Amino acid sequence: MNIDVAILGSTGYTGAELIRLLDAHPHFRIVHLGAHSQAGKAAGEVLPGLGGPVAAMPLLASDAALPDAVQLVFTALPHGAAAASVQAALAAGKRVVDLSADFRHATTETFRAAYGAEHPHPELLGEAVYGLSEFAREQVKGARLVANPGCYPTSTLLPLVPLLESGLIASEGIIVDSKSGTSGAGRSTRTDLLFCEINEGVRAYGLPRHRHAWEMDEWASNFSGTSATVRFVPHILPMTRGMLTTLHLNGEAPESWHAILADAFAGEPFVRVLAEGRMPSTQGVKGSNRCDIGVCVTGPDSAVVVSCLDNLLKGAAGQAVQNANLMFGLDETAGLAAHGLWP
Amino acid sequence: MNIDVAILGSTGYTGAELIRLLDAHPHFRIVHLGAHSQAGKAAGEVLPGLGGPVAAMPLLASDAALPDAVQLVFTALPHGAAAASVQAALAAGKRVVDLSADFRHATTETFRAAYGAEHPHPELLGEAVYGLSEFAREQVKGARLVANPGCYPTSTLLPLVPLLESGLIASEGIIVDSKSGTSGAGRSTRTDLLFCEINEGVRAYGLPRHRHAWEMDEWASNFSGTSATVRFVPHILPMTRGMLTTLHLNGEAPESWHAILADAFAGEPFVRVLAEGRMPSTQGVKGSNRCDIGVCVTGPDSAVVVSCLDNLLKGAAGQAVQNANLMFGLDETAGLAAHGLWP
Amino acid sequence: MNIDVAILGSTGYTGAELIRLLDAHPHFRIVHLGAHSQAGKAAGEVLPGLGGPVAAMPLLASDAALPDAVQLVFTALPHGAAAASVQAALAAGKRVVDLSADFRHATTETFRAAYGAEHPHPELLGEAVYGLSEFAREQVKGARLVANPGCYPTSTLLPLVPLLESGLIASEGIIVDSKSGTSGAGRSTRTDLLFCEINEGVRAYGLPRHRHAWEMDEWASNFSGTSATVRFVPHILPMTRGMLTTLHLNGEAPESWHAILADAFAGEPFVRVLAEGRMPSTQGVKGSNRCDIGVCVTGPDSAVVVSCLDNLLKGAAGQAVQNANLMFGLDETAGLAAHGLWP
Amino acid sequence: MNIDVAILGSTGYTGAELIRLLDAHPHFRIVHLGAHSQAGKAAGEVLPGLGGPVAAMPLLASDAALPDAVQLVFTALPHGAAAASVQAALAAGKRVVDLSADFRHATTETFRAAYGAEHPHPELLGEAVYGLSEFAREQVKGARLVANPGCYPTSTLLPLVPLLESGLIASEGIIVDSKSGTSGAGRSTRTDLLFCEINEGVRAYGLPRHRHAWEMDEWASNFSGTSATVRFVPHILPMTRGMLTTLHLNGEAPESWHAILADAFAGEPFVRVLAEGRMPSTQGVKGSNRCDIGVCVTGPDSAVVVSCLDNLLKGAAGQAVQNANLMFGLDETAGLAAHGLWP
Repeated sequence: MNIDVAILGSTGYTGAELIRLLDAHPHFRIVHLGAHSQAGKAAGEVLPGLGGPVAAMPLLASDAALPDAVQLVFTALPHGAAAASVQAALAAGKRVVDLSADFRHATTETFRAAYGAEHPHPELLGEAVYGLSEFAREQVKGARLVANPGCYPTSTLLPLVPLLESGLIASEGIIVDSKSGTSGAGRSTRTDLLFCEINEGVRAYGLPRHRHAWEMDEWASNFSGTSATVRFVPHILPMTRGMLTTLHLNGEAPESWHAILADAFAGEPFVRVLAEGRMPSTQGVKGSNRCDIGVCVTGPDSAVVVSCLDNLLKGAAGQAVQNANLMFGLDETAGLAAHGLWP
Repeated sequence: MNIDVAILGSTGYTGAELIRLLDAHPHFRIVHLGAHSQAGKAAGEVLPGLGGPVAAMPLLASDAALPDAVQLVFTALPHGAAAASVQAALAAGKRVVDLSADFRHATTETFRAAYGAEHPHPELLGEAVYGLSEFAREQVKGARLVANPGCYPTSTLLPLVPLLESGLIASEGIIVDSKSGTSGAGRSTRTDLLFCEINEGVRAYGLPRHRHAWEMDEWASNFSGTSATVRFVPHILPMTRGMLTTLHLNGEAPESWHAILADAFAGEPFVRVLAEGRMPSTQGVKGSNRCDIGVCVTGPDSAVVVSCLDNLLKGAAGQAVQNANLMFGLDETAGLAAHGLWP
Repeated sequence: MNIDVAILGSTGYTGAELIRLLDAHPHFRIVHLGAHSQAGKAAGEVLPGLGGPVAAMPLLASDAALPDAVQLVFTALPHGAAAASVQAALAAGKRVVDLSADFRHATTETFRAAYGAEHPHPELLGEAVYGLSEFAREQVKGARLVANPGCYPTSTLLPLVPLLESGLIASEGIIVDSKSGTSGAGRSTRTDLLFCEINEGVRAYGLPRHRHAWEMDEWASNFSGTSATVRFVPHILPMTRGMLTTLHLNGEAPESWHAILADAFAGEPFVRVLAEGRMPSTQGVKGSNRCDIGVCVTGPDSAVVVSCLDNLLKGAAGQAVQNANLMFGLDETAGLAAHGLWP
Repeated sequence: MNIDVAILGSTGYTGAELIRLLDAHPHFRIVHLGAHSQAGKAAGEVLPGLGGPVAAMPLLASDAALPDAVQLVFTALPHGAAAASVQAALAAGKRVVDLSADFRHATTETFRAAYGAEHPHPELLGEAVYGLSEFAREQVKGARLVANPGCYPTSTLLPLVPLLESGLIASEGIIVDSKSGTSGAGRSTRTDLLFCEINEGVRAYGLPRHRHAWEMDEWASNFSGTSATVRFVPHILPMTRGMLTTLHLNGEAPESWHAILADAFAGEPFVRVLAEGRMPSTQGVKGSNRCDIGVCVTGPDSAVVVSCLDNLLKGAAGQAVQNANLMFGLDETAGLAAHGLWP
């Protein structure tokens, strides 16, 4: 089966990963690459990793018409800008996986609080399915519009939701201390993202409340059925890929939490709970769609839970392909690497 | 004034920094370099950063006699191994700054709990002064033996103690999430410290309770007069130098915490509290003896406090020289850089 | 078609890549993982990148018997040590791709000159095919034993051989200045490979004559039919993967050299000659089996030719799989990525 | 003695280093910091490494008048833009160390060839002294205007000139293969200098002929009295600081070259020739004003000579201070580190 797809926003880091994954995918076929400032060039001129024929594909202007044959559109555009493209694609009868933040919140109020702007297409909010694949498999299958989760929320919610469901952990003011590779900031030409300003340094940012905190609160509560809030502090690290989230948790019977997580993800192809007390490294998941989770009890009513993923894969393009596989009834793992590129 | 000094444990990363600082110091003069496996070589053969005459100084065996003229000995040896050298130096009438963990705890019980071994020289514990310079200036001045603090405790205690003293923050179970450059692990030939196993990765380690947690608990309580405990999770990062500690704090009136810290460190040459809401980067302190602190209120009863230092300087060799300056009545900043090597 | 394979030397960086590639390969099936010091553990305990069932496969002792069904053995062992395993595998009726240096030279004299040791199995030298796939396709197809080329020779010979064949470039004393990521040094627990000793540094090594210089001379001459010699200087860089070789070439009509290379590699799936004057980066080939080549004329009788590859893929495990594909009549590109993992 | 100085172009990487060095210098005193787009801020807001009072100094507009007391001006401005400021400072009776390329060439023709523009102030060319300190000490002492050499020419000329003077090496088409940390590209907000586009990659650039090749040719010839030309290929590396230049040399009696270099630099405080056959690393010179040189004979008529320096220090701000020391009759080493910051 060949399913024709388009990618809008092809030349950022997430767009580059979508091309890499979809070009090697057994069932999807890229027929349209939308770009913005780079339109007119070949994809390979802007994305040095591309090999083979796709490198010669032209980058098309943002307003170029989508071919009729396109069934699925991936939008990897900035928040705020994505909504219009999503609306147009849906109106043209396509299905959409949107990698922006535009459809991750149920209400315009939350969107406004997190992004400081009015939502451009509130009429579509009700339809969007929040595509954290492991927790929303059935809804994703039938969705016309999937809102692909943010990288920080993915790394936080995967370990957090089963523990909230258990009722054993304290659900308010959960400490979420995250460390991200620099590619998470996107291909933005900013002085503070220059090699010399990132290398050999680490800093916290996004305080007092990073946008993704709203996403975490909303979906931790929705998925678990328990009202939950986080206190989230992200840090940027001198590495390209990789995200590690450290959850400092309180609650009852922490010695049972490892089993809760191991049970929750038994059989999951892309979530692995390590042996108790073993801690994952982002090195192990780089280039894969995997999330590795470690649990260590630290006291009679506390434990540390750590998750690792590749922010461009399970945190973005990889999960988008996983969702696309679900939407079209394909093997959920098609085109996605089980193994990290190590070292 | 020229004060002759010896360094024992010259060829590790901390030893290298001691040589660099003391060789350029206006008052100390290196006359003896003790090494272990590398004895017999010139210092410059083992430490590529050294220039000038000190590079030609011979590395002497661990049991080589200290010259009579030596007044001060820096011991940069592994914990457990340092104590015997410290005892011998004291017995020979020298003063000592010990950079190991051997004399950081008041009791043998705590040492045993943290290091899993019997203390080799308990008779000296009572005499040692814990040299967190800013909080122990007067005691350090008169000390015969200074126990130089660990890097994680220094980065934690500097921002934590004044807040504990204020009585405004919750003092039990304080979340301390630290991120350290790899040089903190020392010059140990271990597979997990190879470039390819550290680069492009981050991981937590030292769980469930890292040794430095005992040191934090003991000195947070001692310095502040308030019983305090921490929940400490260290992480290792793909950078050589730099340590960032994120304190997730609860308490009353967090809007007053910035002023408390600014007041506590007003006039301090090596501690800088940034403007409220601004967050420091380890890039700014690399190569300096400075600790930069940032404060951001995150809720009606919470704030995030972040500290940055160079683990080999304010976290080790720099603070050792600061203490030595105090011990000999010198300008506390002599031989120590105010500026980081940036970028 | 399923072809059972074994990997000997599974736990080094090259072994890890072989497992990653072969486990995801459509036709090869890993049935035996030999290790040495790590035997008894599961593969995933030693290789953090592995996901899925292969992570649970046991690592077997070096002398464990190979299953009868194994048709092909990959030996990723140190030079000198590999030959015995190769001999045993051949004697048991298997075919072999040897990633060590043991069978890359036609004579024991050259092996002795390059490696300073007697060859352990000279009787097999005559049979080995030097598997630089693009230049030895037909011989590899029929081979029982393929000697997989070294990383530096691969990056040098690909651009050099067609130019030597043209007769236009000076063939003696060719300057080969190479820059390699640190994974090329292997997973050796050496002080000079620690993160802190590699990071933020670059150095030349292997002088006056690195082992791979003999391999370059021998195969540049063999493949081109022109006696050629190189002056080779390798450098180690603070990055994990990637190799860039700069050829400083003299000769006639350098304006024609780009076309010679473009023609030589037209249609090759894994060698790409960039537009004239454009220079490749190792970033573009990381994770792929591709070699990118750039050509720039610098004078009336000179040009600079630069090649980039991933030292663990086209420089080792990737080319080994490419050769295995040829040996078994499979699609030469099966299981190998066209795209780099970028960024 | 206190000599008041001004820095124009304070907020780039070289400007930052000038501030760091001059603020800690025993004789120079910074009284004026010129900036461009950042004027109006405090220095410490833009340069995170600064500590102490200088961090609070205001950044002044480019056209702010220089205080009368200023005796010396350091211009760290882009080429082309520097000349006007240099002219104005000289006209106001100041002496100048210009870190741009504007006064490095004797003729407008060479400037035009290298920089593709007309020289803005040709009347000053005759007066400028090319300040490669070790080779121009006496001229620098009396100079009103010192043209501070480029980083690549400094790393090339230091080892090259004494060998050219010996008459033993071939002087035409000398292969100069350089590797530079990314700070050499300056604090320019360019996509290709983002962390994610530099990290884990290496590439050649500046072909077919980098600007610094003209500077090398001119001064290799001038200093040695022998007409010489280079073939120069620079590469950019994933590290912040450090420059390594590999000279692939031909000539007679290469076994004598080490002694020639050792003799040439005997007693020099900032040039060190390593023991024969030992190769330097840029790690050893980071943060120092040192250039380390290694020599290895590779054949009967060839050798490899490697030099290492910190591109921001001996390659820029450090040599500028060294020249300023000479101009004002100070100890040549005042305010400059002999030791690298290692690791």
